[in-house]
Amino acid sequence: HPPKCTEYDTAYFQSYSHLGIHEEMLKDQVRTETYRKAIIQHQKYISGKVVMDVGCGTGILSIFCARVGARKVYAVEASDIAAQASEVVRANNLSDQIIVLHGRVEDAVIEEKVDVIISEWMGYMLLYESMLSSVIFARDRWLKPGGLILPSHASLYMAPITHSDRYHESIDFWRDVYGIDMSAMLPLAKQCAFEEPSVETITGENVLTWPCVVKYVDCYTVTVEELESVTAQYKFTSMMRAPLHGFAFWFDVEFNGPMTFPGKDRMQYNGSSYSDFQTNSNQSRKKPKSDELVTLSTAPEDAPTHWQQTVLYFFDPIDVEQDEVIAGRVTLTQSKENARFLNIHLEYCVGGRCFIKESVMR
Amino acid sequence: HPPKCTEYDTAYFQSYSHLGIHEEMLKDQVRTETYRKAIIQHQKYISGKVVMDVGCGTGILSIFCARVGARKVYAVEASDIAAQASEVVRANNLSDQIIVLHGRVEDAVIEEKVDVIISEWMGYMLLYESMLSSVIFARDRWLKPGGLILPSHASLYMAPITHSDRYHESIDFWRDVYGIDMSAMLPLAKQCAFEEPSVETITGENVLTWPCVVKYVDCYTVTVEELESVTAQYKFTSMMRAPLHGFAFWFDVEFNGPMTFPGKDRMQYNGSSYSDFQTNSNQSRKKPKSDELVTLSTAPEDAPTHWQQTVLYFFDPIDVEQDEVIAGRVTLTQSKENARFLNIHLEYCVGGRCFIKESVMR
Repeated sequence: HPPKCTEYDTAYFQSYSHLGIHEEMLKDQVRTETYRKAIIQHQKYISGKVVMDVGCGTGILSIFCARVGARKVYAVEASDIAAQASEVVRANNLSDQIIVLHGRVEDAVIEEKVDVIISEWMGYMLLYESMLSSVIFARDRWLKPGGLILPSHASLYMAPITHSDRYHESIDFWRDVYGIDMSAMLPLAKQCAFEEPSVETITGENVLTWPCVVKYVDCYTVTVEELESVTAQYKFTSMMRAPLHGFAFWFDVEFNGPMTFPGKDRMQYNGSSYSDFQTNSNQSRKKPKSDELVTLSTAPEDAPTHWQQTVLYFFDPIDVEQDEVIAGRVTLTQSKENARFLNIHLEYCVGGRCFIKESVMR
Repeated sequence: HPPKCTEYDTAYFQSYSHLGIHEEMLKDQVRTETYRKAIIQHQKYISGKVVMDVGCGTGILSIFCARVGARKVYAVEASDIAAQASEVVRANNLSDQIIVLHGRVEDAVIEEKVDVIISEWMGYMLLYESMLSSVIFARDRWLKPGGLILPSHASLYMAPITHSDRYHESIDFWRDVYGIDMSAMLPLAKQCAFEEPSVETITGENVLTWPCVVKYVDCYTVTVEELESVTAQYKFTSMMRAPLHGFAFWFDVEFNGPMTFPGKDRMQYNGSSYSDFQTNSNQSRKKPKSDELVTLSTAPEDAPTHWQQTVLYFFDPIDVEQDEVIAGRVTLTQSKENARFLNIHLEYCVGGRCFIKESVMR
């Protein structure tokens, strides 16, 4: 039974009926070219097969699949952009291969199983928008055993950052405005600038140490329940002396063939650092050679994407020393009111002092 | 009797309670430094005098006035940022000089006449927001005969522009998206990109010929009625062969001493081009030497400001030849529903074909 369509879902779909959001995604060449590359790399799993594109938008991924020989593509789109996707399919003479279905995937009527599910479901901080739930629904209902899911795996990372320029620009600015002391604005300025998560582009130089994994998602096995609330403990050791301004979050997704992974090996989060994690996982994991594995990364050290990074800033920076430990816990919970929103509960301890920051991504 | 405060007014004031909008205005150095320069230049009219600042925001202009010796400044602000303005005044030990009044100027109780009214009331396309009406209200109620208004005069300009890069990026993009023909998006793309006025920065190179004046405002004599609907006929002669993509609008304001102008000499719009206009006005006008006249310009050939320019794009460009005439009429009308919105009715004729574009600045 499909989950009910709330007024928030309707508003969410409505937001994707505007062309600008699709233009932004299409013009994100890192995103679009990586998907194209992954589709070409998996041609043998797609050619002659039945594909489902969950949230097809303008239909670009469906068309990429058709072009590598998909026998049939169910392109499902809940927003009104589906009308344009239909026209694009027709104009490109792909109506025999691609069937655009205008509606929620949860309400779709598809009378056969599919070999491949493809979807670009990732939101800010990976989980914002909660669209992965729709992919899970489609997987459980229509994916054949041994079928392919693209992307196959996703990781959400976090790392402590320093960003004095940003703090100066938004906060210190008020201390001297054309010679006037506007420090009276500081409480309001901190609230306006840093109460909510900030989507912005940072660089590798802002990052104080290796990131840790907040959540590893195996798209073949992940459940809706497991996404309702995600908690991770972390422990960083700062690689430099700097003011700690907050934490950045980003993600990457991998496009692996079906059943590359023996199971949930990588799912147990063990509180180790990114480098430990990589070492461990490289040992236990049958990873394709790195030149074969297609990865879409939104990390600060990689080329910028429209996802940028998401930063939780503190109201006041904390000075950390080199090798000082920054430890705590973060919990991301789907908002009870609107499951597409993300409540973020962040605990952080530095130098014997602990803090809590609550924020909402809306 | 004050005009009633509509729900649109309340929403408008609410928008100015957010700090970001004030930060943007303060960080616009062209804007803020020009006001400061004008205040310093008019020190002899301000020192020892009573000033009213209509819509004081963070209080910066009031403080500039206090610093050049204003005896008293009534700093009137309808939005909740007035609370912070009060604190800033107190923190700078200016409470004896500056009285922050939280409320609409139309509802203010001020028991004396003022020597100077200063205000930063200009919106996009000069008239958007309709805040000038509040300055007029204050002028008619409190300004002493012979008093000073800063700025004293404002001009709204328009000019035909070419902007192929912008058109390619927003429209032609859809003709070939990663090898896919998405021309089916074109009607929606044109609507999304160009139905409403676009606030963006263009350069002098985009402008096809000299601008014309749509509206000249003498702040000493302008009436509320005259702002309800503004009409101008125009006739441009393109200085080059190029695709005509639309019209850009921008404004400048001048900070003259009181009664520099003998009357409404410059108010009669006579359909002449910008260059003719300047020649005429320079003849009839007692203009201070240009190094004395402080002007805040938002023209494409001048340094960018947060107002940028406002562009009305056509859905399809029109090829114009060098020396070809572009003629028509533009009418800017306060929306009946929400007087802070601007209805724009644009008629344009090129090469014997005439068109009409209706849009709303909201």
